[in-house]
Amino acid sequence: MARLSTRTADLQASPVREMLNVALRPGVISFAGGLPAAETFAGLGVPAPPRELLQYGPTEGEPELRARIAQELSALGIDTAPDRVLLLSGSQQGIDLAAKLIIDAGAPVAVEAPAYLAALQVFRFFGARFDVLDRTDPAAGWASAPPRLAYVTPTFQNPTGDCWSAEERFAFARACEAHDVVIFEDDPYRDLAYEPCERRPACAGMEGSFIYQGSFSKTVAPGLRLGFLTASQDLFPYLVRLKQAADLHTNRLSQWMVLQYLNAPDRAQRMGQVTAFYRDRRDAFEVGLQRHLGGMADWRTPPGGLFFWVTLSGGIDCKALLARALGRNLVFTPGGHFMVDGGATSSMRLNFSHAAPDAAEQGLQILGEVVREQG
Amino acid sequence: MARLSTRTADLQASPVREMLNVALRPGVISFAGGLPAAETFAGLGVPAPPRELLQYGPTEGEPELRARIAQELSALGIDTAPDRVLLLSGSQQGIDLAAKLIIDAGAPVAVEAPAYLAALQVFRFFGARFDVLDRTDPAAGWASAPPRLAYVTPTFQNPTGDCWSAEERFAFARACEAHDVVIFEDDPYRDLAYEPCERRPACAGMEGSFIYQGSFSKTVAPGLRLGFLTASQDLFPYLVRLKQAADLHTNRLSQWMVLQYLNAPDRAQRMGQVTAFYRDRRDAFEVGLQRHLGGMADWRTPPGGLFFWVTLSGGIDCKALLARALGRNLVFTPGGHFMVDGGATSSMRLNFSHAAPDAAEQGLQILGEVVREQG
Repeated sequence: MARLSTRTADLQASPVREMLNVALRPGVISFAGGLPAAETFAGLGVPAPPRELLQYGPTEGEPELRARIAQELSALGIDTAPDRVLLLSGSQQGIDLAAKLIIDAGAPVAVEAPAYLAALQVFRFFGARFDVLDRTDPAAGWASAPPRLAYVTPTFQNPTGDCWSAEERFAFARACEAHDVVIFEDDPYRDLAYEPCERRPACAGMEGSFIYQGSFSKTVAPGLRLGFLTASQDLFPYLVRLKQAADLHTNRLSQWMVLQYLNAPDRAQRMGQVTAFYRDRRDAFEVGLQRHLGGMADWRTPPGGLFFWVTLSGGIDCKALLARALGRNLVFTPGGHFMVDGGATSSMRLNFSHAAPDAAEQGLQILGEVVREQG
Repeated sequence: MARLSTRTADLQASPVREMLNVALRPGVISFAGGLPAAETFAGLGVPAPPRELLQYGPTEGEPELRARIAQELSALGIDTAPDRVLLLSGSQQGIDLAAKLIIDAGAPVAVEAPAYLAALQVFRFFGARFDVLDRTDPAAGWASAPPRLAYVTPTFQNPTGDCWSAEERFAFARACEAHDVVIFEDDPYRDLAYEPCERRPACAGMEGSFIYQGSFSKTVAPGLRLGFLTASQDLFPYLVRLKQAADLHTNRLSQWMVLQYLNAPDRAQRMGQVTAFYRDRRDAFEVGLQRHLGGMADWRTPPGGLFFWVTLSGGIDCKALLARALGRNLVFTPGGHFMVDGGATSSMRLNFSHAAPDAAEQGLQILGEVVREQG
């Protein structure tokens, strides 16, 4: 019998993963997961990459792409430079690297409630003890017991779609600076903005320790597995060494393809089409929500991102509801999975980006019916 | 001041990494690193991938590629199946996943001496305590204190180029089975065989716990970052969950390209050209070694792989020698970096695959001169 690491005890089969397997069955309508719509992908029509990209490459990434990303992050007010940009095999990898760098067993980590579940899984695997962040009073309790790391998604949060105000961002950053808390700001949805909204990164202008990461999965294509991070000078060299130990460097063809996309003259126009496409999907989804769940649930229109966070009235349990929905070939993500300390049992995350309009309408009709049956 | 994980204390700047930065300077001849020759790469001339590969994909990898790899591993005698193959973002990632799965702080891990240095770094980062494996008596000391994991590269070992005999492979596997030691067999060089040689994987026919991994970096192209593993049924599901937490899934375009290469009708012919190319480089390198270091050093002709392991006579220290060589624009890897408990200070690893013949000859001439100066 193989002897495994103690941390493996916390490595249960993810309930979400099982659910996504269901979502792939023919005929199933999925509001689970966070798949972008294939209609938005930038496509494969780029010039052939230079042959030298077939060789091993630098751990940090391709110089031209790093420079381009640094330029865009600097324009957002983030303290960075080309030699402080690290290309990632998707931004999920940044979570793994940050956890390795900062989390010991028992280390306190502040997270939002709810928060991105795959980040919670990684932090938990490395032994984090979670504190829930109150963004209206971020330093509450920090004088006596500051967390090592605060993981936040201030712009179009996953799962809620919330966008922090300028004041909240400012207060959070100052609290982290005052208490030596590393900010880990995850910003994969920032380009999917459907309404005017504060989007200045919380770590813009930071003097303390920070990691800021972004993704090309929502703006170019997720199958390329390409993300990036920048970090304060005290952390960056460690993250590079951890990246090297994790997979040497990121796929060079993906880096080439994304660089072509970033340099394309029609980039802004294409991005405008993408956001218009998603805004339409969001609006149609909300009409369906109103039609089939009006009076039985609450939600806020998400100003960006890929999700509605819907809370049912009357204390209906969404895990039980999911079992019923699965029987009708509908899948969604119960809110409890995004919580570190229970709660949100009557909430669910509904992805509006992937299901085509007809399927979305049908799925929402089923959802309304099972809520009525259960209620 | 950011509070970092205790394991980060062991995350020094890699001396090898610094050295490789030197190797990239114009005019420097590098026998360090393990870069394949670009002449051997399979190239980019594959059909355009289907557009659906731009979407998120399965954590385990593309079904058709998994089936193909399972078929080839089964033919080698390994107990596997398509649903027990996991595609990796390069085989370095398999080392990270295995370490996460098995190594707690203080856990004993058996390794060869010398052993692949980037594996040692990862195991050390997770807190491994190293035992040196004696492959002529693998179970020595295991009755009282068996390691959790034994990491080995029996075929064209990095750095020595050694190839274990059939008896050694058999005895090692039985020892691991008898003492519940997980075999972690790393096999990136198996296709680079220049002489007839035992190459049956040590874990072929295993009844115990094992992880076996391979790479396409040496046979297709390293810039694609594609490797794979299979594992015994008790370990495989955990490795999939760890892969999901690490980067969700492997780049799908790389998987597509490698599948085309594996299915190409001229694959065997191309692989024959690759090994002939490398055999010529090896033979020319050995002629140069003989010419410039004959009588001052010992080595064995490596039957496969990418390296000569050269031991200097007279107790010359290779780290001091490297400083001298760098002054002459030559870089190589001192043997001590591959050891967990000191030793091999008079040995060095010389890569013969990457430097072109003229540069190799010139580098060996410089090497002979600095050895003579220091001796």
